[in-house]
Amino acid sequence: MIKPSYRKTLLITLGDPNGIGPEIIEKALKTTKIDSKVIILGNIRFYNDKKIKIIDNIRYSSDNDISLLEIDSGNNDPSFAYVKNAVSLLKEGKADAVVTAPISKEKWINTGNKFMGHTDYLVQTTNTTKWAMFFWSEFIKTALFTTHIPLKNLFGEIKKEKIKDFCRFVDSRLTKLTGKKFSFLMSGLNPHSGESGTIGTEESEEIAPAVYELKKEINIEGPFPPDTVFIKAKDRENSVIISLYHDQGLIPFKLLNINSGVNLTLGLPFIRTSPDHGTAYDIAGKNIANPGSISEAIKLADKLIEK
Amino acid sequence: MIKPSYRKTLLITLGDPNGIGPEIIEKALKTTKIDSKVIILGNIRFYNDKKIKIIDNIRYSSDNDISLLEIDSGNNDPSFAYVKNAVSLLKEGKADAVVTAPISKEKWINTGNKFMGHTDYLVQTTNTTKWAMFFWSEFIKTALFTTHIPLKNLFGEIKKEKIKDFCRFVDSRLTKLTGKKFSFLMSGLNPHSGESGTIGTEESEEIAPAVYELKKEINIEGPFPPDTVFIKAKDRENSVIISLYHDQGLIPFKLLNINSGVNLTLGLPFIRTSPDHGTAYDIAGKNIANPGSISEAIKLADKLIEK
Repeated sequence: MIKPSYRKTLLITLGDPNGIGPEIIEKALKTTKIDSKVIILGNIRFYNDKKIKIIDNIRYSSDNDISLLEIDSGNNDPSFAYVKNAVSLLKEGKADAVVTAPISKEKWINTGNKFMGHTDYLVQTTNTTKWAMFFWSEFIKTALFTTHIPLKNLFGEIKKEKIKDFCRFVDSRLTKLTGKKFSFLMSGLNPHSGESGTIGTEESEEIAPAVYELKKEINIEGPFPPDTVFIKAKDRENSVIISLYHDQGLIPFKLLNINSGVNLTLGLPFIRTSPDHGTAYDIAGKNIANPGSISEAIKLADKLIEK
Repeated sequence: MIKPSYRKTLLITLGDPNGIGPEIIEKALKTTKIDSKVIILGNIRFYNDKKIKIIDNIRYSSDNDISLLEIDSGNNDPSFAYVKNAVSLLKEGKADAVVTAPISKEKWINTGNKFMGHTDYLVQTTNTTKWAMFFWSEFIKTALFTTHIPLKNLFGEIKKEKIKDFCRFVDSRLTKLTGKKFSFLMSGLNPHSGESGTIGTEESEEIAPAVYELKKEINIEGPFPPDTVFIKAKDRENSVIISLYHDQGLIPFKLLNINSGVNLTLGLPFIRTSPDHGTAYDIAGKNIANPGSISEAIKLADKLIEK
């Protein structure tokens, strides 16, 4: 890895001040070795570590500091204002990556915000037309072919060409981000991956043909039975499972990565990672929140930034 | 536990002779402490341990032996003949439980057998009208509300009364089998368990009302987001997750119990367990198969038999 001669800038948004965001960021920054310059977007009144340098303009941060950029929320929910400001800095080229701490979608909506969450906002505000939710950990990686849709609506999406497009997109974006080539394991949809068409036909009609045609372009195998594909992929280096729906990917991913999984959005014009958990109001303010996931999110953004 | 004055009889069917069944049974019996008398149903020509006592009638097995009952397959696939004979002995009251080693459904069908597998045969031949696939391990237990159906057909099953019936059935059968009371965690169906109806309505319309009404009768909570309910239940003693579909339960169960998960059929007139894997033809005959799952299946049947 050739280091750039200047330090890149990694933004961290504080998330919902009433959630565990401020606490886990503080804990993570105390134990995580970071190459980039770090700027937290938030308000110091919500942040416990008052020794941190407070700035009101990004150019006042020094290369060696972790600083907190004080954000005026205006009429917005503070957690939305943090992200909005982060996007402005990223668009202006003043920063290279962002790690977002958890927010409350309900609060966003209640304050008149029309976005369904971070990813929705980031995609819309950057006019991104193609993107993917990707979950990254050292030992297991998965891309979600569909995300926050009712399970009932999944079946209309299981089409050969859509699957091919998605896999090609994930493959090219991952290589662009990491400089590496990945191999892919496609999950089936039905129990036992349809068992030769006796338990569902999506595998034989759409998924297997997609994999067959993709083999000419990318390193892909499958479809495999959903209940063993994660076991197959575990510990295989540079291997990615294509999960067809949210829980097919996230049930095993979260189970294998309690306090260490990272959500990575593929397709944005900048690097964006986040922890794979929510605001956890029930344990906020108790100083018992585990910073593992956001710490890994910071490390991954820091690593990818330097590629 | 009051021990009966006579020893109970545990049958083990050899499974497909070309699969790993004979090997894992032999390995398991060498290392598993069993209270019951054990009779393997198979053919000694498929079984490596030739020191085992061969019998051609169950009354010739002594209380202290592990014996192999030599089965004449006739026109049947041998693995089917083993199970058929096991069921006869169980029906006649000559045995108390059966552990079934893996078979090939394809071979069964190719030899003119109309049953889709062990469970299908056992249910039909005993005129069982209500049954459930249950997966058991020390640290996690789950009941599958639906099993080998195309995922597309799941939605017609998600009905309040069906869910209530199923949970009541699992609760009463488990207590009957084990003498213990269990608590239940209901999984949701959609991402984030529907997120208050914004990502699917099955939770608010059918699943949550079922749980609400069930609370009067059994110890049940939920529905919880599918991607964290297994993490919640892990290591909670006497806790059972109700999984709504095959892979929702088996993705996490298999991941948490590599080589130790047990399939237990609830509702049969006798105890039946099996390993949670298949014939594994690719590694058969190589002496590398792991007997962990069948060993746990034998131990569980042996434990339940004495209740």
